[in-house]
Amino acid sequence: MIKITFPDQKVREYPEGSTALEIARSISEGLARNVLSAKINGVVWDATRPIHEDAKSQLLTWDDAEGKSTMWHSSAHLMAEALEYFYPGVKFGIGPPVDHGFYYDVDLGEHSISPEDFKKIEDKMLELARQANKYVRKEVPRTEAIEYFREKGDEYKLDLLEDLQDGSITFYQQGNFTDLCRGPHIPDTGYVKAVKLLNIAGAYWRGDEKRKQLTRIYGITFPKKSQLDEYLAMLEEAKKRDHRKIGKELEIFTFDDDVGPGLPLWLPNGAVLIEQLEKLAKQTEQEAGYQRVRTPHIAKENLYLTSGHLPYYADGMFPPMEMDGEKYYLKAMNCPHHHKIFKELNPSYRDLPVRLAEYGTCYRYEQSGELFGLMRVRSLQMNDAHIYCTKEQFAQEFNAVNEMYLRYFKIFNIEKYIMRFSTHEPKKLGKKYVDNPELWIQTEDMVRNVLIDSRIPYVEVADEAAFYGPKIDVQVWSAIGREFTLATNQVDFAVPARFGLAFRNSQNQMETPICIHRAPLGTHERFIGFLIEHYAGNFPIWLAPKQLSILPISEKFNSYAKKVLELLGISDIRGLVDLRDEKIGRKIRDAELKKVPYMLIIGEKEQAENKVSVRKHGTGDLGTFGIPEIIQLIQKEIDKSLNVK
Amino acid sequence: MIKITFPDQKVREYPEGSTALEIARSISEGLARNVLSAKINGVVWDATRPIHEDAKSQLLTWDDAEGKSTMWHSSAHLMAEALEYFYPGVKFGIGPPVDHGFYYDVDLGEHSISPEDFKKIEDKMLELARQANKYVRKEVPRTEAIEYFREKGDEYKLDLLEDLQDGSITFYQQGNFTDLCRGPHIPDTGYVKAVKLLNIAGAYWRGDEKRKQLTRIYGITFPKKSQLDEYLAMLEEAKKRDHRKIGKELEIFTFDDDVGPGLPLWLPNGAVLIEQLEKLAKQTEQEAGYQRVRTPHIAKENLYLTSGHLPYYADGMFPPMEMDGEKYYLKAMNCPHHHKIFKELNPSYRDLPVRLAEYGTCYRYEQSGELFGLMRVRSLQMNDAHIYCTKEQFAQEFNAVNEMYLRYFKIFNIEKYIMRFSTHEPKKLGKKYVDNPELWIQTEDMVRNVLIDSRIPYVEVADEAAFYGPKIDVQVWSAIGREFTLATNQVDFAVPARFGLAFRNSQNQMETPICIHRAPLGTHERFIGFLIEHYAGNFPIWLAPKQLSILPISEKFNSYAKKVLELLGISDIRGLVDLRDEKIGRKIRDAELKKVPYMLIIGEKEQAENKVSVRKHGTGDLGTFGIPEIIQLIQKEIDKSLNVK
Repeated sequence: MIKITFPDQKVREYPEGSTALEIARSISEGLARNVLSAKINGVVWDATRPIHEDAKSQLLTWDDAEGKSTMWHSSAHLMAEALEYFYPGVKFGIGPPVDHGFYYDVDLGEHSISPEDFKKIEDKMLELARQANKYVRKEVPRTEAIEYFREKGDEYKLDLLEDLQDGSITFYQQGNFTDLCRGPHIPDTGYVKAVKLLNIAGAYWRGDEKRKQLTRIYGITFPKKSQLDEYLAMLEEAKKRDHRKIGKELEIFTFDDDVGPGLPLWLPNGAVLIEQLEKLAKQTEQEAGYQRVRTPHIAKENLYLTSGHLPYYADGMFPPMEMDGEKYYLKAMNCPHHHKIFKELNPSYRDLPVRLAEYGTCYRYEQSGELFGLMRVRSLQMNDAHIYCTKEQFAQEFNAVNEMYLRYFKIFNIEKYIMRFSTHEPKKLGKKYVDNPELWIQTEDMVRNVLIDSRIPYVEVADEAAFYGPKIDVQVWSAIGREFTLATNQVDFAVPARFGLAFRNSQNQMETPICIHRAPLGTHERFIGFLIEHYAGNFPIWLAPKQLSILPISEKFNSYAKKVLELLGISDIRGLVDLRDEKIGRKIRDAELKKVPYMLIIGEKEQAENKVSVRKHGTGDLGTFGIPEIIQLIQKEIDKSLNVK
Repeated sequence: MIKITFPDQKVREYPEGSTALEIARSISEGLARNVLSAKINGVVWDATRPIHEDAKSQLLTWDDAEGKSTMWHSSAHLMAEALEYFYPGVKFGIGPPVDHGFYYDVDLGEHSISPEDFKKIEDKMLELARQANKYVRKEVPRTEAIEYFREKGDEYKLDLLEDLQDGSITFYQQGNFTDLCRGPHIPDTGYVKAVKLLNIAGAYWRGDEKRKQLTRIYGITFPKKSQLDEYLAMLEEAKKRDHRKIGKELEIFTFDDDVGPGLPLWLPNGAVLIEQLEKLAKQTEQEAGYQRVRTPHIAKENLYLTSGHLPYYADGMFPPMEMDGEKYYLKAMNCPHHHKIFKELNPSYRDLPVRLAEYGTCYRYEQSGELFGLMRVRSLQMNDAHIYCTKEQFAQEFNAVNEMYLRYFKIFNIEKYIMRFSTHEPKKLGKKYVDNPELWIQTEDMVRNVLIDSRIPYVEVADEAAFYGPKIDVQVWSAIGREFTLATNQVDFAVPARFGLAFRNSQNQMETPICIHRAPLGTHERFIGFLIEHYAGNFPIWLAPKQLSILPISEKFNSYAKKVLELLGISDIRGLVDLRDEKIGRKIRDAELKKVPYMLIIGEKEQAENKVSVRKHGTGDLGTFGIPEIIQLIQKEIDKSLNVK
């Protein structure tokens, strides 16, 4: 018998050689039907692979990222089988799962493929899926593997084999297709119920532009037909909500060749978004006892040698400026500057926790090919802060950070989110991880308890912590169900010591503080990119660049319109007057296109009565309002958005 | 007869060969007694030098910067005479006036000098001054001048003579001292009524460290004894108010070797000052119809080639970063980025003026020896904005900027200020100045009229405009009478065209806008440096980093104290609780030292009655207050500071 430890720490015994699928079946048939693979002692395995020793086991389903990956990896093989059916002699490069689906790089030889061919391939894949062919794992000696692909004439697989050691080579076979593959895979092709090929691209073999260009075919599969329909609807909606498209239409940001790629210029509407977000964050952080600081955007090389960012992270930083015989770097993170401020403040235990916050703009080098709208940029305005606290204060501080996240999720109507909690691997202490086993266990326990107590959904991922402590990646889903990684929070119990940070504790001894790195709103760039999609540009009124547009029916009413705007301005309401010599219908249409929440229409009657007709974006006519009533209307809406519990 | 045109454009006739002194005497004896020199056709002349042709004339007194300079230049000669008396054989390098006084670089040979010698030199200078010796100007042929100094054995003057052309060499003589000097000088030594030597430093001849080190002796003189007393008192007070000293005591900013010189790190108290200033500026600018933008801190070389900052201003910029085969520069000014945003917004004449504001941080290279606290730094957080308007809108826009200045002066209790209005020189059009004579005259007239109409004190300085338009330097005096240059405002009618900026005017033609560069609060660095001295760290309550300090009499009352702070915090009142285990006297003393405006003292009685005892910094006990009364007290004080008319 072997002992299987489940994620909830319960232990059950099973016969030696049991598979994850059998284990699942021992719990329930329903669970077994959903198991795609399993994490055995931290490694993802086939659900059908026998387990021969005591193990920690986590069953993986479609709800787990690794479960999805397994399905998509198997789907790449399924597509390969279909391709081989239609294009005999096709040769295969690599076919991995990606964030959303999978691809396979193929050499079609004399054949070619176009989106018109997708349908027949999808149909074939579904036909093969219905056969519920098993994915069979087989360990293969190197010579045999080489022999197999030499006979098949697939030089790409032969090339891949060059890098593999004898004894570590496995084949997977399903139906008529056999592939060189590490796995793991789903039990059989029957799990795939819906298939969609997405697009075709060119890709050089091994990413080397001197080698042959292969055809990369992207696809995605689902365990339910309805999930594919939802996914396609989401893609369609995401295209409409593309932050680059809406960002241009609503004049939020732009790029300029003379400034440089990845360096957004924020137009007035974008700057309002930024100012409103900063106002919210500053207010929230002030209430939570943060102090603000301001630090330069550059520092000498030595600062980053001390922090350890140099030389290891040099590729992610901008190149240095040489001045007065010294190298200066644009900061890629704010922490070293904040550590210096902590040191200067020289607090005692009575002053802790010290929470230093800054909207610091950092600069990170990304290859120009990797840049993407606001989502992948080179300048990052971060909602950054560093909390310095004692070990005793840690749990409470970490909990307060989580509470802040939850409040933000409510304010921004983010209904789906998860925290990815990365822990250390004890075997790698002193190598990948700072060698302080007790502090690791203690801090991870504290983090885990906070996550459990606060009922935040989370997954725990072993061996993905930062060098200096456990970390949390916060993932959120937009209103249309797209996933975004917003922020990374880290616990740091190593770098403060490198900077010689210390406080005098109540026993009058010097003690090193723990540092929490946190940035709940991530960067303005990524967060606003997310919000544009999330709200489709229909920002809640507290955030909207223009809260209302005043539309005089003719030029006669322009001066009354301006007076109304001025009155509203006193109550900090943001608006504009459409002074153009256009028909009112056109003015309304344009205001709707600009997604301005309210339109105030002014004609003879309104001016005479000192009122305005109010129209709500996407809703229509609300009737006639006096100025104080509009102010009340808007302020009520703002309060409703921001005063969440 | 010659025609003399006065600054008010009035013209009077005088006999050919009249001097400025005689002209002054023709107006009033009192004026004549105060005339130190005169500006004749834009050049500063001896008041005693005969005028042989029609001329624009401005009489210069102690109230003019050039009047002061003349006096101090003459005082350098006076000191030289005294030095020659005490140290026969002393040789003289250069002896110019400086911002506050004068110096002379001297080679004392076998002699040496120390501050103990100052008194006797000062006394000798006063004795010579009482003799009212005339400063006599004499044109000298080159050979004769060389002969004179060869005989005297002064190799420094001989060295200076090397660079001078025959026909342009003049000597000035007063009493027993003759100097090679271009002048101008005051009529006689009798104008000097008070003398103070300030300090001694070393200075290499011609600034070249390979040459001989001379002794630089600094001094200052005044036309009244009382002015010297005031000056010395001011120096004494300035030392107490040194922004570096108070900045450290109040934990406002710090520098760090690993970050770099000239790059202040703003501690939490400094960040409050910055946040409050930005809040004020943003509110003021919002009311004035500005829109905010955000731009990166870097740009490609090409942006600065377009703006013309490169290659001419390269020495004032940080060195480039080479990336992806391009050079990137830290921005030294925000205008090029704003021009790009204007272009993207593509406004029509209906949208003008467009006013783009940003607290953009710029980076400028200053030699490390030039850096000085917050006053001379390398990172500059600028209260920047660029106003793009039509020619017709210019005067109104420029006036609005001036109104903003006046409002700020009131808010910050700046009672003495002046605008230095720099205009072009028609002869240098196409060389030093952009060749658009009409626009120069038109814009300068508009600026002058606005200055006159708004009754802002100003001086007009010919031939000191920027390349692309007239400019204004704003000079203010701190509460103790020290002068600071806060900001430079510029009119720019050339660079917008270089960027291809244009708007469609009402005649449906493309037209280039005029751009006003303005920064009324200068940079945070310089302005906060000024404010620290101006208020001696006793910031008005709206600006004070901590508005109150809550002082529990013993630890028993700590939790009530914290509750009070929390209640006040809801009304955005900034404070702290002194939780230390110290006697109340010590806590009060420390709060006074930290210049916290209010102290709230809490003991048995206060806690029982739900009240606090209030003590005002520098004033003393105010009695017992309830929490709502304190909030009212503070808010009233804030309103009084900010709601100025």
